Amino acid sequence: MSEIEYHMPEGFLISTAEAAVKKPGRKDIAIIYSTVCAVASGVFTTNLVKAAPVLLDIERIKGGKGRAIVANSGNANACTGMRGLKDAVKMSLAASIELDCPETEVFIASTGVIGTPLPIDRMFSKIIEAARTMGNSTLLDAARAIMTTDSFPKIASAQINISGKAVTIAAIAKGAGMICPNMATMLCFVLTDASITKDALDEALISANDYSFNRITVDGDMSTNDTVIVLANGLAGNAPIRSGNRNSGIVFRKALAEVLMRLAEMIVKDGEGASKAMKVLVKGAKSEHDASILARAIASSLLVKTAVYGCDANWGRVIAAAGHAGVDFDPNTVDIFFGSAMVVKNGLTTNNDAEAALQLKADTVVITVNFKMGRASAQVLSCDLTEEYIKINAEYRT
Amino acid sequence: MSEIEYHMPEGFLISTAEAAVKKPGRKDIAIIYSTVCAVASGVFTTNLVKAAPVLLDIERIKGGKGRAIVANSGNANACTGMRGLKDAVKMSLAASIELDCPETEVFIASTGVIGTPLPIDRMFSKIIEAARTMGNSTLLDAARAIMTTDSFPKIASAQINISGKAVTIAAIAKGAGMICPNMATMLCFVLTDASITKDALDEALISANDYSFNRITVDGDMSTNDTVIVLANGLAGNAPIRSGNRNSGIVFRKALAEVLMRLAEMIVKDGEGASKAMKVLVKGAKSEHDASILARAIASSLLVKTAVYGCDANWGRVIAAAGHAGVDFDPNTVDIFFGSAMVVKNGLTTNNDAEAALQLKADTVVITVNFKMGRASAQVLSCDLTEEYIKINAEYRT
Repeated sequence: MSEIEYHMPEGFLISTAEAAVKKPGRKDIAIIYSTVCAVASGVFTTNLVKAAPVLLDIERIKGGKGRAIVANSGNANACTGMRGLKDAVKMSLAASIELDCPETEVFIASTGVIGTPLPIDRMFSKIIEAARTMGNSTLLDAARAIMTTDSFPKIASAQINISGKAVTIAAIAKGAGMICPNMATMLCFVLTDASITKDALDEALISANDYSFNRITVDGDMSTNDTVIVLANGLAGNAPIRSGNRNSGIVFRKALAEVLMRLAEMIVKDGEGASKAMKVLVKGAKSEHDASILARAIASSLLVKTAVYGCDANWGRVIAAAGHAGVDFDPNTVDIFFGSAMVVKNGLTTNNDAEAALQLKADTVVITVNFKMGRASAQVLSCDLTEEYIKINAEYRT
Repeated sequence: MSEIEYHMPEGFLISTAEAAVKKPGRKDIAIIYSTVCAVASGVFTTNLVKAAPVLLDIERIKGGKGRAIVANSGNANACTGMRGLKDAVKMSLAASIELDCPETEVFIASTGVIGTPLPIDRMFSKIIEAARTMGNSTLLDAARAIMTTDSFPKIASAQINISGKAVTIAAIAKGAGMICPNMATMLCFVLTDASITKDALDEALISANDYSFNRITVDGDMSTNDTVIVLANGLAGNAPIRSGNRNSGIVFRKALAEVLMRLAEMIVKDGEGASKAMKVLVKGAKSEHDASILARAIASSLLVKTAVYGCDANWGRVIAAAGHAGVDFDPNTVDIFFGSAMVVKNGLTTNNDAEAALQLKADTVVITVNFKMGRASAQVLSCDLTEEYIKINAEYRT
């Protein structure tokens, strides 16, 4: 196995363990641990139905401090009632005992099947074991441990210079199914040694998340478990980044956004059963809000996604999906491109299907739609829809 | 081929013709003709991008009178600019010349590929030919002529008694792909010999449409060409049904709704690649509006649709889809049934997967969700999502 290269921030240790949460034979528990107390920030699913670990984290993140993240794959601990909440607390308790830190500074994340209670006794002892051997694994091992239907581990990192100090950001994610504009069944953990205040970290995360995970869609469904957590432990020793800081704040936010964007692209490329990625770029909208609604409508259309899969330059589906988005535009001014091939000019075909079909063979198909109503633009990442998606999701639990 | 039985209203004649709109080898033009001037009513796509025939019909339906409907399959005459509008007018002109009726009383409907101009010269002479031999076909032949990816013709009829007279309603439809709550790529023509005023007919159609075509979903996409047109020629000789008529108005509206509902069910069963139908019944919502939003969210979820295809009682996907609908509820009071098998009671599993899996083998899978928030209910019809859907739509134009 060729290892993937990434930078690791100071002061973080990783452990993994095999708890046979769903079935034996793989590491399915990961613990991320900061040797010093870190500033913590998070964004979570907007689904009304929230999994137990999400409910717990939403409370704990208010404290703004974090030492560890305990995650498992194989079971989402969602729709599990009071027992689910108790189990999530137990997971954090196991780690806090062994790592000697407050339970309230341990965050929990679970991903997998909904509605089945966790095998908590087995997990409890495995979490203790992992915490006891803290440092037994790499961040890439953790990225593997949180995979469900993902076909490859997702990791990205960046290094920046803030006030003369090297600051590192590293992050892992899992995605695959149920991904939708509001970042569904997606876990992402970000580790950084930046010194940054809670306010500044919250602002950077919300902004970076809006331009990355909230701009991808796989199947329009949204999970009960979406979680992005950042721990910033300050060990880089940079001058603390504060809310409103022009220079260092922007440098940090850009680097964070870039790391999250790279993970978002990996998630889309690994969309369940996807054969290629699809980038919908809307130009000439009246506002960025309109642009993102139009881009999402096109990127979510099953008919557009199947046409991309079939290399069919069926631009009628693109304009029909836009017309259904609830945003006003004039169909007679619309231009559409598949890659570099213009297929529609001012609402009419350019009879360019052969060139367009070639463009549709790319690994990432770019669909550009210019509405010529204004100057705003937006981009949404998606993937095609294949027979393989159906197979994976019709047989997920069997 | 065994013929399908249906009642035919008085005073309607049908012709079909082969115009090789997309390719030769099948009847692809249908004309429906009333021997006397009929009251006309219609509902059309709410997609911002409307095909030329739809734009024409929306203008003409305001006159409230109709003599004929000319429909073709193989080409939607959508996104075809000024030429498309002229072509739609030419189609109506051909029929009006030969049938000796005002052009403004001829409605046009087209279905098929978007963005390609019609082969209008060939179609013009074939429409003239069909009109000249008016009565050369049956309504079932017309149902076949308007098919695109449909696998069977869709026809339904009803007979009712109004003021001592037998009144007949017969209707044909085409559906298959792109069907969504707001009745996408769907054509439906309703013929009745009822005597009814324009106002009463409009009211009956809007109500019947809301409870039938607007409560089905195949893939969430919506076409540029959706059209439902009713012609009521009065030849049954009943006492005219007027707006506000209690008895006869209700009898007519119910019969119309029943006919449209039967067609809607056929459309869902014939959803592209569908292996079975899916009925989502939401109970205990605070309002009918909430109930229908929740039912649509569940019925549209790709993950629910693939689970139904795979006979996987994955109720977590049902509750996650509901939680994403934007309607407030308490996850801890929700009950879920697959067929007669209760799988969730008050938000928790009943461990009833084996019984539920059996229920998922039905031709029509009924998913009932009781939110216990109020007394309102709603039902949405859908179908499962299979590999075959992908195949059909990835290769539609090839």
